Amino acid sequence: MFKQLYRWLPPESVLLSDEAMRPYECDGLSVCTQRPGAVVLPNTLAEVKQVLEFCRTHHIPLVPRGAGTGLSGGALPHKEGILLSLAKFNRILQLDPRSRTARVEPGVRNLAISQAAAVYGLYYAPDPSSQVACTIGGNVAENSGGVHCLKYGLTVHNILELKLLTIDGEWLTIGSQAFDSPGYDLLALLTGSEGLLGLVMEVTVKLLPKPEQVQVLLAAFDSVLAAGQAVTEIIAAGVIPAGLEMMDNAAIRAAEDFVKVGYPVTAAAILLCEVDGHAAAVAQQVTKVTKLLAQAGAQEIRLAENEQQRLKFWAGRKSAFPAVGRLSPDYYCMDGTIPRKHLATVLQRISELSKEYGLAVANVFHAGDGNLHPLILFDANHADELKRAEEFGGKILELCVEVGGTITGEHGVGIEKINQMCVQFNSAELSQFHAVKAAFDPNGILNPLKAIPTLHRCTEFGAMHVHQGQLRFAELERF
Amino acid sequence: MFKQLYRWLPPESVLLSDEAMRPYECDGLSVCTQRPGAVVLPNTLAEVKQVLEFCRTHHIPLVPRGAGTGLSGGALPHKEGILLSLAKFNRILQLDPRSRTARVEPGVRNLAISQAAAVYGLYYAPDPSSQVACTIGGNVAENSGGVHCLKYGLTVHNILELKLLTIDGEWLTIGSQAFDSPGYDLLALLTGSEGLLGLVMEVTVKLLPKPEQVQVLLAAFDSVLAAGQAVTEIIAAGVIPAGLEMMDNAAIRAAEDFVKVGYPVTAAAILLCEVDGHAAAVAQQVTKVTKLLAQAGAQEIRLAENEQQRLKFWAGRKSAFPAVGRLSPDYYCMDGTIPRKHLATVLQRISELSKEYGLAVANVFHAGDGNLHPLILFDANHADELKRAEEFGGKILELCVEVGGTITGEHGVGIEKINQMCVQFNSAELSQFHAVKAAFDPNGILNPLKAIPTLHRCTEFGAMHVHQGQLRFAELERF
Repeated sequence: MFKQLYRWLPPESVLLSDEAMRPYECDGLSVCTQRPGAVVLPNTLAEVKQVLEFCRTHHIPLVPRGAGTGLSGGALPHKEGILLSLAKFNRILQLDPRSRTARVEPGVRNLAISQAAAVYGLYYAPDPSSQVACTIGGNVAENSGGVHCLKYGLTVHNILELKLLTIDGEWLTIGSQAFDSPGYDLLALLTGSEGLLGLVMEVTVKLLPKPEQVQVLLAAFDSVLAAGQAVTEIIAAGVIPAGLEMMDNAAIRAAEDFVKVGYPVTAAAILLCEVDGHAAAVAQQVTKVTKLLAQAGAQEIRLAENEQQRLKFWAGRKSAFPAVGRLSPDYYCMDGTIPRKHLATVLQRISELSKEYGLAVANVFHAGDGNLHPLILFDANHADELKRAEEFGGKILELCVEVGGTITGEHGVGIEKINQMCVQFNSAELSQFHAVKAAFDPNGILNPLKAIPTLHRCTEFGAMHVHQGQLRFAELERF
Repeated sequence: MFKQLYRWLPPESVLLSDEAMRPYECDGLSVCTQRPGAVVLPNTLAEVKQVLEFCRTHHIPLVPRGAGTGLSGGALPHKEGILLSLAKFNRILQLDPRSRTARVEPGVRNLAISQAAAVYGLYYAPDPSSQVACTIGGNVAENSGGVHCLKYGLTVHNILELKLLTIDGEWLTIGSQAFDSPGYDLLALLTGSEGLLGLVMEVTVKLLPKPEQVQVLLAAFDSVLAAGQAVTEIIAAGVIPAGLEMMDNAAIRAAEDFVKVGYPVTAAAILLCEVDGHAAAVAQQVTKVTKLLAQAGAQEIRLAENEQQRLKFWAGRKSAFPAVGRLSPDYYCMDGTIPRKHLATVLQRISELSKEYGLAVANVFHAGDGNLHPLILFDANHADELKRAEEFGGKILELCVEVGGTITGEHGVGIEKINQMCVQFNSAELSQFHAVKAAFDPNGILNPLKAIPTLHRCTEFGAMHVHQGQLRFAELERF
């Protein structure tokens, strides 16, 4: 069946052998793998349209894929479907320093945009950890954030226009180069829709002028609670840091062991607070934040004295995930968000759960916007530990929903958190999502079984959201 | 038929007589009037649900209405339908200074939120000209902006969560108190949907700390072109003013005659540039903007010396619409947006069109975000002038679309610009909008015939958008 693809695509653009398809069997959620029916790497828009038509005509599932760095399995192949790599659409089509925009193809890497814009003193703000590798198409699909999203927003806040190819092969221009556009706002609807609504074939991003000055403070605390409280105080005081990151003792030690940047290894928690903007305002904010950190009980406060030291402060944070990976055979990276005011209590509860489940947890996260990344350490060789890790993870997400937060901050739902969507949303809300999906893709060709669970699945999962009542939360289903 | 409403609503909440319904026959687009079948003013959510059920069961059009200050006829009644006023839902349910949010009912006035938050040093940023009267429900429906939206965004950027009552009487929670939420982003989809998708019964808005300092500069230019160029230069230099407004000579003279604030009446154009933030940064920016204004050829630059003078500078701008209303029996207020870089050329073209059509035009607009409000002066007593004004208006909107802008910046489409939507969007895009509408309201009960034209209407209008070809633009249809 899939051999028909050779009719429209050159031989090197159609992969059918096990060996050739192996690299496409998973994305960043590497515990889930699936061999697709075929992998295609089209070179032209005409070829993409042919693939769409083929899938539409024969009802073949189509899974779009960017760089495959996603952490929730959004690009996991469908076993009877086609995996569509957009890697070859990697051109920056236009970069206009006057209007501060860049028009790019979906396969352009996130960092490549900032590199191209640097000559004009501009950059593209969202900076996911994977920014060296991840592509703007994937960023749009997942509405990616990064350490600076507290001040500069998520992908949705940094794009202006999309060119969408619908499952019917129609071109839609979504959003506009202007500030607002008439009609329904489909730009935000598409952003974060995880490839379920259409193929984004062009993205116009906003570029920002590089800030005049950037300063970073490192503060050490003798309790996670005090550090959490400091975050609340900084935000409540009206400071909007460019980044406000927190690491607990386990994460600090792991990072320090790994990159040796001089982190205070005995601290219960550290905060990294970056402020940027006009030089005078930055100086004013550094003074203000320093005072607030001291009041919140910081034992030590360091200001990076030069750019080299600033990068060193960040190096520890940026390497925290691989560093924690050296502590334990496996770790499970959670991604929940909570309203900032509950930060201290949620951290306290995670620490209690850690004892309850007998599993260490390292906390590394975007504290400023309440996006937690607790890393649960375990050894998958012990079946019992994996089970406990999953339960523990489930409890953390339950906790996030309980305090009014969400089950995913920036990693998306994909296949990983599809069951937790049953906890986050009630059946009317899920039905509305399915109706919206049907408005774009009535036959469910695009990325089936991802992001939005069927009501049937939720019933089976046994965790249908209960209004104003008790939340029930079953064990994380295995994939 | 409508007498059945008395079954569920108290007598004073159902208006059926011509006299009682008169005030509801139009909104701010007062040239369009329509007597509805009935007006209802429910007091409780249970009553609202009864009205919904009645409309759903009998396929009766339902038009929601806030304060009726909208300028595009979005709340124009349907002659066979029910006009649903949400005026009685006017309570601030919660105001939390720690998380800087307020949870309010749809009938709460925009300014009332800032007034309630003032005691905590907080305010709600979007400030449409009608903010004394307009309500947050209407603001969400129209995605309202205001003079400060350049820096602080539109309504969509300043809300977190909506409680939506669907046409089926289901409750949906849309968005969340957290930074991002999983599932499709329906928050932006609902915002600006002009009452076509559901009833917004609760809004959680973000509150911002009042800036430490606010300064405003007034600059006079001897040509509109030079003023437009100054706007481009200020933005290109990386300054993001809190407001950046422009008035041309006709508007300056009208405003000065009306409020006597000392505007330079011989200037071809003035710019008002407000900067806010930390005191030191504001001082730095004032210096920078002053220099840029001088370089762009400003003949006179004044800095408001105190709060009283600052308010005076703004008083002229804020009264510009009624002031222009004194110049001429009628005016037609346009609302298009353009990419900022085309500002100077579009202004030039409007001035040429003014000569061509023999009608004066006063330009008052949010220059910083490219949102134009040209006011075309005419006398409706001369049928010929009305016709020319409409043609002239159509040309301006056509010009906006030509340079990559849109037919509406912040006033919505409603009934006023429904034909221009045929120019803005192609048939695939309009079909997609209809599919989205059907996903929420399959029988088209909510606010029918507004915002999104049928393809049939576009064909009749004879101005179906042509891809990469010539735009055709027919005369503005009369209502």
